[in-house]
Amino acid sequence: MTKVLKGIAASDGIAAAKAYMLVEPDLSFDQVNVEDTAAEVARLDDALAKATADLEMIKKKAAENLGEEEAEVFEAHLTILADPELVGQIKDAITNEKVNAEAALKNVTDMFISMFEAMTDNKYMQERAADIRDVTKRVLSHLLGVTLPSPALIDEEVVIVAHDLTPSDTAQLDRNFVKGFITDIGGRTSHSAIMSRTLEIAAIVGSGNATSEISEGDMVIIDGIEGDALVNPSDEELASYKAKAEEFAAQKAEWKLLKDAKSVTADGKEVILGANIGTPEDVEGANDNGAEAVGLFRSEFLYMNSAELPTEEEQFQAYKKAVEGMNGKQVVVRTMDIGGDKNLPYLPLPEEENPFLGYRAIRISLDRQDIFRTQLRALLRASNYGRLAIMFPMIATVSEFKQAKAIFEEEKAKLVAEGVAVSDDIEVGMMMEIPAAAMIADKLAKYADFFSIGTNDLIGYSMAADRGNERVSYLYQPYNPSILRIIKRVIDASHAEGKWTGMCGEMAGDQTAVPLLAGMGLDEFSMSATSILKTRSLMKKLDTTKMKELADKALDSETSEEVEALVAEYTK
Amino acid sequence: MTKVLKGIAASDGIAAAKAYMLVEPDLSFDQVNVEDTAAEVARLDDALAKATADLEMIKKKAAENLGEEEAEVFEAHLTILADPELVGQIKDAITNEKVNAEAALKNVTDMFISMFEAMTDNKYMQERAADIRDVTKRVLSHLLGVTLPSPALIDEEVVIVAHDLTPSDTAQLDRNFVKGFITDIGGRTSHSAIMSRTLEIAAIVGSGNATSEISEGDMVIIDGIEGDALVNPSDEELASYKAKAEEFAAQKAEWKLLKDAKSVTADGKEVILGANIGTPEDVEGANDNGAEAVGLFRSEFLYMNSAELPTEEEQFQAYKKAVEGMNGKQVVVRTMDIGGDKNLPYLPLPEEENPFLGYRAIRISLDRQDIFRTQLRALLRASNYGRLAIMFPMIATVSEFKQAKAIFEEEKAKLVAEGVAVSDDIEVGMMMEIPAAAMIADKLAKYADFFSIGTNDLIGYSMAADRGNERVSYLYQPYNPSILRIIKRVIDASHAEGKWTGMCGEMAGDQTAVPLLAGMGLDEFSMSATSILKTRSLMKKLDTTKMKELADKALDSETSEEVEALVAEYTK
Repeated sequence: MTKVLKGIAASDGIAAAKAYMLVEPDLSFDQVNVEDTAAEVARLDDALAKATADLEMIKKKAAENLGEEEAEVFEAHLTILADPELVGQIKDAITNEKVNAEAALKNVTDMFISMFEAMTDNKYMQERAADIRDVTKRVLSHLLGVTLPSPALIDEEVVIVAHDLTPSDTAQLDRNFVKGFITDIGGRTSHSAIMSRTLEIAAIVGSGNATSEISEGDMVIIDGIEGDALVNPSDEELASYKAKAEEFAAQKAEWKLLKDAKSVTADGKEVILGANIGTPEDVEGANDNGAEAVGLFRSEFLYMNSAELPTEEEQFQAYKKAVEGMNGKQVVVRTMDIGGDKNLPYLPLPEEENPFLGYRAIRISLDRQDIFRTQLRALLRASNYGRLAIMFPMIATVSEFKQAKAIFEEEKAKLVAEGVAVSDDIEVGMMMEIPAAAMIADKLAKYADFFSIGTNDLIGYSMAADRGNERVSYLYQPYNPSILRIIKRVIDASHAEGKWTGMCGEMAGDQTAVPLLAGMGLDEFSMSATSILKTRSLMKKLDTTKMKELADKALDSETSEEVEALVAEYTK
Repeated sequence: MTKVLKGIAASDGIAAAKAYMLVEPDLSFDQVNVEDTAAEVARLDDALAKATADLEMIKKKAAENLGEEEAEVFEAHLTILADPELVGQIKDAITNEKVNAEAALKNVTDMFISMFEAMTDNKYMQERAADIRDVTKRVLSHLLGVTLPSPALIDEEVVIVAHDLTPSDTAQLDRNFVKGFITDIGGRTSHSAIMSRTLEIAAIVGSGNATSEISEGDMVIIDGIEGDALVNPSDEELASYKAKAEEFAAQKAEWKLLKDAKSVTADGKEVILGANIGTPEDVEGANDNGAEAVGLFRSEFLYMNSAELPTEEEQFQAYKKAVEGMNGKQVVVRTMDIGGDKNLPYLPLPEEENPFLGYRAIRISLDRQDIFRTQLRALLRASNYGRLAIMFPMIATVSEFKQAKAIFEEEKAKLVAEGVAVSDDIEVGMMMEIPAAAMIADKLAKYADFFSIGTNDLIGYSMAADRGNERVSYLYQPYNPSILRIIKRVIDASHAEGKWTGMCGEMAGDQTAVPLLAGMGLDEFSMSATSILKTRSLMKKLDTTKMKELADKALDSETSEEVEALVAEYTK
């Protein structure tokens, strides 16, 4: 019988291909004494040459398939392999200490790694430590005669099987060859799951044991719709999944027809379906997928992809490009949201016991007004080129919002006095992601033009659980009535003041959540661009009155499981 | 003019005495080469002898004033000073490397310290590292001819001035001589502030600059009621404060008369004023201060003051002693609340990015049922000796409460089957300290017999701010309307189901909060034992109808500042 693995459906789509195990091989060895040190040096030279050849090939492939920028990391690796000081020290260790090449390599590189890692305030050195670690693994694999997987070298259709995929792994994935992936760990909102939706490849995460149940070369079907993986399926199963894949492709084609349609429920209620974007370049994908707005433009990329604070002019150009690209549709820019797990190399933040409960987002902006005012000026200048809105992240109190808004007004007045053209109807709103803010949403709604619910942090704080922490990730429950009640409270408060509420967390594009959110009156749903058309299609089947009844029942439930059962009953 | 320092009033009371600077002197030195190494060894021997004499005196004083247990740490220090291996290595370093005694001492002890500290999983070795560091400072101070402050040696009335007081500092304080203290940092809920209330000595924390503004021997008045410190006051000021101190003493005497009185408002509404305790020994202080219950018995002490998991029998004896000591009054025991910032040496917890949002409290208990069941059995057995109640910390969902309660019922049934006598009316409640739980308090109230609001964590999660993090501690706002609304919601939900709500956080004993909490209908206030009589006295002056009006206005305010102004207006 075919082996079936169950996991979390992370990205729609169906793929069938041979398994490529992205699993680190056993690189353990014993340190032994050697007499013939010259032979050991020769073994090292041979391994270095093979590793260099590997890396040159990987670099070439990466440049072809992924672009020059992705290929640069391998150039850094090649430089390390060619470093005469490093290689010299390893050879000296073999000759003087009469140990095998593996031990000499490891001892010397470990020393460099710990030296570089000790420079905790120097991001450059930290990255060099990671590079040396990668290179050491590659040379070691050749010394030990085992194969190290290299995603960039994949040149046939595969399904990747991994414990987890790191950002550096996903950066190397070529959609032309990688048809899908399955991981042992992760959830719908983990990095690898989000990437799978951006790349539009079938994916299953959190399968628990894919790496132990699947072997290199096994034929694997990834059903990213249901979250099932079939290992070495029968011909009948392959045929059946092929049909299902075709059906899915047909459905996607049908969704494409909705690109320029409005987002309307069966009974005629309109909502806005927007896209979350990270750079102005993402506007193209948003438009291609029929986004009616950009509900969240994360401005962090400007700060994170830079060696120093971005200038007002650099920011202005980026915001201008985004609002122009959206051609009159609203673009909501979130002001700098760093801290927590996002750090800037040139702006050292204090070491904190609990960074998620620390100095981050608007708390930094209100403290470092030099940075904040520069960003606001850039945004104000860009407002003249389209429909721009601004929102502040991590607002907890009325005082914070009023203070941020006052700084905005000051910069606006200064620009007007300088004769710079700025729009006169910029909506200024706030992220709703802190429980205390939700409790006084009625008060905040008097000042904020809109709310945008950030579900990731809101759920984390409300449940007192870091979703990145595996031991407590079970508490990340978007459908728990407690979370739904907070969302309802926020929406109602905004409506009572004639304002609107959007959602820009992962939940907004979740097909189980959509009927609940629509039933509670959410005005705007902002999600990965690739989820928009599917959601627009779903919206057409939903009835406002019935969704309201569903939401009321859900709000009066006791547990997340009860709510999920209610939605399943409704949408079946 | 007299210099006046402003700080946070941490503990009622007024003290006037000479300043004792608990500030580490400058112990820096240069490493130099010496020719006459014999003279350098002699300098070392002299410093070792003086340090030994110091420590023997400190140990004797500590044993007399504070008890044998507090004195033990100094015995450990003496053992280090007498260690022939350590002393031998330092002397060798002088002789062989021809360096001064300061450098030889520092280099050798630094090596031992880093060796011991590297054993991160061995708490014993970590403590030895701290001991060696302390001893090194003392020997170094004698080599350099500077004086090291020693709180245990204080034998005249003083006011301590320090940057902050550590637990080991406060353990050495003798109330007979230390009349008060003032620190640069800290807030009303920091360790030093809590200790000042337990010791009933006047204290001001968070003054900002006491250590730089006050010098050794300055006369200082500490006004722990207003939070003012006067440096070198005039005779008139001294006389005026003496009168104020006498007035305060008279007031305390008046409060003492309320020891056996009920806690009743001016219009006759009764509430319960309970004590928070950490060990069964604290029951005496609770009774002396007229506690009507123990609203929180932190069971952690059993786990933290132990080299291994406490046995069922050890726990049973402790719980039995507490309930018997309270003589029929209710004792609410909170089950094991470790994790976060509380770790057990023998139960290694995972390293977490955000421990406050991690694996802690009931989350550990539900996972490690072996530990949880042992505690529940001990509690059940003790329930037969008085009026015991149990509460679970960090409950976020209905499922968690039901699961914990089911385990309780299982252990109860087992004990009954074994023929062990257990009480049949043990109330089983929960801490209300997670925002999500507060949002579904109506659902939880169907299962829990009572709620106890833990304000420290509740405020921290609701505001998404770690109060221990100075950069965001401004967001720790107990009077913010958002927090008051959460509290109101919880109280109302419990009453709708005929249940009761208490509070066991610092806020329950805060004189500004009491009228608000009583106005919102809080049933039980549990606080530091020493705050009970003062609160009972305040309660007598409060009117339920007016407090309700006050609470309603506060709940409809926008900011913490507005609420504080309302309370000030009401209580003036």
